[in-house]
Amino acid sequence: MKIDLNSDLGESYGAWTMGDDAAMLALVSSANVACGFHAGDPAGILATLRAAAERGVAVGAHVSYPDLAGFGRRDMEIASRDLRAAVIYQIGALQGLAAAAGTRVRYVKPHGALYNRIARDEAQARDVIAALQALDASLPLVVLAGSKLVGWAREAGLRVVEEAFADRGYRADGSLVPRAEPGAVLHDPDAVAARMLQLAREGTVTANDGSTVRISAESICVHGDSPGAVAMAQRLRERLLAEGASIESFAA
Amino acid sequence: MKIDLNSDLGESYGAWTMGDDAAMLALVSSANVACGFHAGDPAGILATLRAAAERGVAVGAHVSYPDLAGFGRRDMEIASRDLRAAVIYQIGALQGLAAAAGTRVRYVKPHGALYNRIARDEAQARDVIAALQALDASLPLVVLAGSKLVGWAREAGLRVVEEAFADRGYRADGSLVPRAEPGAVLHDPDAVAARMLQLAREGTVTANDGSTVRISAESICVHGDSPGAVAMAQRLRERLLAEGASIESFAA
Amino acid sequence: MKIDLNSDLGESYGAWTMGDDAAMLALVSSANVACGFHAGDPAGILATLRAAAERGVAVGAHVSYPDLAGFGRRDMEIASRDLRAAVIYQIGALQGLAAAAGTRVRYVKPHGALYNRIARDEAQARDVIAALQALDASLPLVVLAGSKLVGWAREAGLRVVEEAFADRGYRADGSLVPRAEPGAVLHDPDAVAARMLQLAREGTVTANDGSTVRISAESICVHGDSPGAVAMAQRLRERLLAEGASIESFAA
Amino acid sequence: MKIDLNSDLGESYGAWTMGDDAAMLALVSSANVACGFHAGDPAGILATLRAAAERGVAVGAHVSYPDLAGFGRRDMEIASRDLRAAVIYQIGALQGLAAAAGTRVRYVKPHGALYNRIARDEAQARDVIAALQALDASLPLVVLAGSKLVGWAREAGLRVVEEAFADRGYRADGSLVPRAEPGAVLHDPDAVAARMLQLAREGTVTANDGSTVRISAESICVHGDSPGAVAMAQRLRERLLAEGASIESFAA
Repeated sequence: MKIDLNSDLGESYGAWTMGDDAAMLALVSSANVACGFHAGDPAGILATLRAAAERGVAVGAHVSYPDLAGFGRRDMEIASRDLRAAVIYQIGALQGLAAAAGTRVRYVKPHGALYNRIARDEAQARDVIAALQALDASLPLVVLAGSKLVGWAREAGLRVVEEAFADRGYRADGSLVPRAEPGAVLHDPDAVAARMLQLAREGTVTANDGSTVRISAESICVHGDSPGAVAMAQRLRERLLAEGASIESFAA
Repeated sequence: MKIDLNSDLGESYGAWTMGDDAAMLALVSSANVACGFHAGDPAGILATLRAAAERGVAVGAHVSYPDLAGFGRRDMEIASRDLRAAVIYQIGALQGLAAAAGTRVRYVKPHGALYNRIARDEAQARDVIAALQALDASLPLVVLAGSKLVGWAREAGLRVVEEAFADRGYRADGSLVPRAEPGAVLHDPDAVAARMLQLAREGTVTANDGSTVRISAESICVHGDSPGAVAMAQRLRERLLAEGASIESFAA
Repeated sequence: MKIDLNSDLGESYGAWTMGDDAAMLALVSSANVACGFHAGDPAGILATLRAAAERGVAVGAHVSYPDLAGFGRRDMEIASRDLRAAVIYQIGALQGLAAAAGTRVRYVKPHGALYNRIARDEAQARDVIAALQALDASLPLVVLAGSKLVGWAREAGLRVVEEAFADRGYRADGSLVPRAEPGAVLHDPDAVAARMLQLAREGTVTANDGSTVRISAESICVHGDSPGAVAMAQRLRERLLAEGASIESFAA
Repeated sequence: MKIDLNSDLGESYGAWTMGDDAAMLALVSSANVACGFHAGDPAGILATLRAAAERGVAVGAHVSYPDLAGFGRRDMEIASRDLRAAVIYQIGALQGLAAAAGTRVRYVKPHGALYNRIARDEAQARDVIAALQALDASLPLVVLAGSKLVGWAREAGLRVVEEAFADRGYRADGSLVPRAEPGAVLHDPDAVAARMLQLAREGTVTANDGSTVRISAESICVHGDSPGAVAMAQRLRERLLAEGASIESFAA
C-alpha cells in the first residue's frame, strides 16, 4: 500500500506569508511549488525549494494563469500561444530555482482555475499538454482523478498521475461535490483519514449518497493553509502510516 | 579578426511591440533576450527564441530588476536574497522557453539599471555572480569592458565577456561619455563602423579627446530600436565583413 | 445633425507606445482614456489628459479587467466585490489625474473583454452599474448600441450613451458581425464615411444582408491604432462636417 | 492635550492578509490606507475604508513607489514625471474608493522607501509636493518630524503634519536611531506609553543618550502588524486617555 501526499507550497509573496511550509514539508511526499504567476516571489520560492530538498520531498511546478491579484482563481480566456508559453516559462523558472536549491522539478500540477478548466476544457487542456511536450515530455502531469484530462494527456503520451482530495465530498459518478453544495468539504480529521485509508487500500471512496465509487488515485492532495488544515494532514499521515501504508512520491 | 555583435531583443510585451527582431537577427551573432522582468511576455519571448534558433544566433538571458513600468531602467535597492533569486528565476524561465524553441541559453547579460549598477557596485555585482554560480557557473557573463565587474566576476571563476558600445563615445580612461554630456552618442553610421573596425583590429578606440585608448572587447553591442539604429547596425556589419572580420558568437 | 466621435487613447505603457494620441485628439470629441489596468502608466495618462484638455476633447474612463499582459482582452471570471472596486479605483485614479490636467472625467466606457461581457452578462453588468452608482450616479455609461446592457443600466437610473462602430459590419438584428466572419471589419474609408453619415442622419445602417436596420447611437467609435485607422477617422470626420453635422461630445 | 494616532492599514492584497485592521481602527484616529502600489487591492481597500468611515477614523492616502514585490521598501530612482503622476494616480484612486465608502481622503502620507527618501532627498520631495499641488493643495502632508521635508513642503504652501514614531529610539539631534543600531526599536509597551505621554505633554522625548530633545509632532505613528504591536498601541491609547489626552485626527 503506497500513496503520495501532495500539498500547495511556496505561496507567500514578498511581505505576505501564506501557509506553513515547514510544517507541511514534514508531512507530505510531494510539494506543488508556486511559480510566481498566482503566488511565490523568487526568493520565497527558492527558500521553499531548499527546505523541500533537505526533507527529500519531491518538487512539482504549480503552474497558473497570470493572476496575482486573483491568486490564480479567476477562470480566464487566454490565447493558446499565451497559455502554452506561460506554462513553459513557469516550469523553466522553477527548474532554474530548483537547480540552485539542489533539487529538480519532477512533475507539473496546474493550479486553481486552470486546474479546474483543463479538467473539462479540451482546448486549454491541449495547450498545457503541448507545453509539457515542448519542454520535457517525460514530466508527469498531476490531474483530477477521473477527469477528461486523464484521457487527453495519456493519448498525448504523457505520464498522468490522478489525485484525490482528502477533504472533499464525492458524488456517485466520482466527481467532486461542488463547493456551493452541502457536503462539499469535510471537516472531521478522523473521517477524512478513514476515507483516504479506504482509497489507498481499495481504490474506492464512499460518495455522499452512501454509494461506493471507484477512484483511481496515486496521490492525495492535502491543504496546509490553516492550523486546522495542517492538523488534518497530520492525522491523515499518522493513520496511513499506522495502517502500514508507505507515503512516497510517485516520482521517486 | 573575429568579433561578436549583440543586441537586445524580445522586448515587446503583450499588445505592445518594440524593435524589429527579425531585422536584427539577420545582423547579429548574439541576441540578449528579455526575460519578462523589464520586457517580454512568454509567447513573444518564445517567438524571438524560435527565430534566433532558425538564424543560428546565440541566445543570452537579458536579466533585469523587476520593473515593467520602468523598463528596468530604474536603479533599485533590492535585498541580496531577492536579487539573487530574481536572476536565477529569469535565466531558468528563458532556459525553459529556449528548450521549447530548440536552442539554449548560452550567456547572461544584465539589462539597464542593473547593468550599470553592477559595473561599479560590488554588493549587487556579487549577487548576480552568486546567482550564476548557483545555477550554472559555466554561463559567461557579458559586462561593460573595463568595469570593476570584470575583476569581481573573474575572481569568482566566471567566464567574462567584455563588450563595447558601437554608438557611444569613450573617454580617455576607457569609460563611456555619460549620456548627459556632448559626444555621448554617435550618430554617423560610417564613423561608428570605422571606430568598431579599429576596435576589432587593434583593440583600441579613439576617445573623445583624440587620444587612443585600449578597450578589450569580445563583443559589440548594437541597437535595433529604431529604423536608424537598424541601419547603423547594418552598416557596421557590412564594413566588418568587407574588411575580412568574422562575426560570430563568443559562445559558439 | 449632431454626433460624437470617440476613440481609445492613453494606451501607451512605460517604454512602449501605442496609437497616435495627438492625431486622434484633433479628430474626436471624446477620448476614452486608459486607466492603468489594461494600458496606460500614470505619466502617460496625464500627458494624454493634458492634451485632451487643450483640445477641448471630453474625457472618459476606459475601465478594464486587471490584465496588462492581455491588454484587457481576456474574458475573466472576477468576483463581484473585486470588479466593483476595480471599476471605482480606475475611475478615481483617472479623476485625480484629470483634475491635475485641468479637466474632469465626463463618462465611463468599459474596455475590451469587459465591454463585450457586460453587453450580455447581467451579473458583471450589474457590478459595473453598481460601481458607478457608488461613486457618481451621474456619470454616463457608454455601451454597445442595442445590447442588453442598455436596459439594465437605464433601469438602474444611469444615463446611457449608445455607440456604433464605424468600421464594423452589422447584422439584420442590429448586432455586430462577429470578427471571425466575413464582413466583420470594413476597410474602405469612403464606404465607412457613407454608412456613418446615414447613421447620423437617419438612425439606420445597412446590414451585411442589404437590409436597413435601426441603430440608436449618440456616439461613433473610431480607431487610431494604425496610420490607416487614423486616415479612416479623418475621412469620416471630413465627410460628417461637409454634410453639416456637428461633431461634439454627448457630455458637453 | 490633543494628539493624533495614525497607523498603516489596508495592506492586505488579494488572497494575502496583513495586520488586523479592525483592531487598529478601534485605537487610532487616522488610517494611512494603502493605494495599491505597495499593497492593497481595490476590494480590500474599499472594505478598510468602509470600516474607517463607520468608526469615524480619518483616512489618508498611503502613497508608495510602484513596488508590490518589495512592499514599497525598495528605494528607487524614478523619473520626476513618473513619480508625480504616480502620486496623483494613487490619491485619486483612493478618493474614488473613499467616496464610494462614504468618506473622503483627508491627508497624504508617503510610505516606506519613498517616505524615507523624501525626508532628505529634495528632488523626489519636490515631486511629491508638486503632485499634491496639482491635485489638491489643501491636502495635509504627513512627514517625519524634524526632517528637511518639513521646510520644503511648508515653503511650497502645504499644510505639514509632523509625526513621531511610538516605538523608535531617538538620537540627541532628534533623528531616529537607525534600525541597524542598538536601541532603534523599543519593545516595552509601558516605556513607549510613558515616552509618548511626555511627547504629547511637553513636546519632548528622551533620546537614547539620556538627553531631552524637542520633537514637534501632531501625530504619533503606531503599528498593527503583529499581536504585540496591537497590544502596544492599545497600551499607549489607554495611557494617553487616562492622562486626559484627547486622541483625535489633525484633520478633524
